[in-house]
Amino acid sequence: MPPGPPHEESHFAQAAVVRDFVIGAADGLVLPFALATGLVAAGLAHPLIVVAGLAVIAAGCVAMGLGGYLAARSEADRYASERKREEHETVEYADRERWEVAAILHRYGVRGDALRMAVDSVCAEKRRWVDFMMRFELDLKEPEPQRAGRSAVATGSGHAAGGLIPIAPYMLMPEAGGALAVSSALTAGALVAFGWMKARATGLPPLRGAAQTLAVGAVAATVAAILARAAGG
Amino acid sequence: MPPGPPHEESHFAQAAVVRDFVIGAADGLVLPFALATGLVAAGLAHPLIVVAGLAVIAAGCVAMGLGGYLAARSEADRYASERKREEHETVEYADRERWEVAAILHRYGVRGDALRMAVDSVCAEKRRWVDFMMRFELDLKEPEPQRAGRSAVATGSGHAAGGLIPIAPYMLMPEAGGALAVSSALTAGALVAFGWMKARATGLPPLRGAAQTLAVGAVAATVAAILARAAGG
Repeated sequence: MPPGPPHEESHFAQAAVVRDFVIGAADGLVLPFALATGLVAAGLAHPLIVVAGLAVIAAGCVAMGLGGYLAARSEADRYASERKREEHETVEYADRERWEVAAILHRYGVRGDALRMAVDSVCAEKRRWVDFMMRFELDLKEPEPQRAGRSAVATGSGHAAGGLIPIAPYMLMPEAGGALAVSSALTAGALVAFGWMKARATGLPPLRGAAQTLAVGAVAATVAAILARAAGG
Repeated sequence: MPPGPPHEESHFAQAAVVRDFVIGAADGLVLPFALATGLVAAGLAHPLIVVAGLAVIAAGCVAMGLGGYLAARSEADRYASERKREEHETVEYADRERWEVAAILHRYGVRGDALRMAVDSVCAEKRRWVDFMMRFELDLKEPEPQRAGRSAVATGSGHAAGGLIPIAPYMLMPEAGGALAVSSALTAGALVAFGWMKARATGLPPLRGAAQTLAVGAVAATVAAILARAAGG
């Protein structure tokens, strides 16, 4: 490999499971926090906030974990069936599929003899030909179905762990006003921390990610409080 | 274009806004339904269910709408900054970048003279060269930032519309048990309908999509009810 810039792939270095947990936690903080804040604003009694908070954490955990698992399985099946179709088409409609390879390379400036030779090379072996079509025509990447289960558990656990942060003060403190203050402080800190880590894990600027996650949490809680007070008053 | 199979792109034919609304609605049904079911199981009084339901709908709407909008904006900025970096690298480290083009084409079987000529063609024009690296090395597609706002509004509205379906019976009916029955029936129907449409919009088998959305909603509500009853009893 010729010399190049110092390679920075730090944002992909994190293990996938850690990334899934962090994303789950960042997303899982928002709704329980907003719900609890809304219920305090509506003047609800203390233990009910814990019940509602736990219900929404459990539901969110299932929606993210099970929902994510099923979606990953569907994606894997979709990849397999599209791949079968492409394999069939390279036999049944070989001219059309060759033409499609040429059209893709043509878009990037390959012309004339270079194009003809490149298309011949790609189409010389069926596996590579189909690989090329999957990746560049259909934009499908081979999924890792064995990752789906681990990813679902990591996302679901992250969601539950994140959701417990805003609700824990209501479980431990006797008075709703005090619990709200502690919950808000803890949640703000956690939104910044997990927003920061989520941004790093997904390759975005961390400071901006932290600010965005905090903003979404704050706006969601404010809107929930206004609506709950209006509906409960 | 040579003759080929009848082209089926029906799943991309739907307008993006409709797709965003449908996805928002399918996702937005689950948590309000599970929360309301959990609160009925915990024996909560009727009006509090409406307050909690509206709070969680509002929070989910903000999390999906605003969160999605900010995420789309971040992605657009990331694309722009990565593109700038690639443009810089094709000048500063031209050999390395040529080598990377060759490595990608080599993976699909392009060899020898065909490879040399294809690399020359791609690298002959800087815009195409960078296009090639963005798409095939970094796997980044040019985002449509002007779509971000519309998409956020559509997803957020879908979320709110979906969330109101399980909560509406509690707003309209005097008795919690009756409202739970109507809410469950309506939500089951809506989960099937929106799950079906979401699957069609994302290119998955519709029947399977409907079954999965229904399963996630049912499991989330069941888990929420068990936990809420345990915590509230």
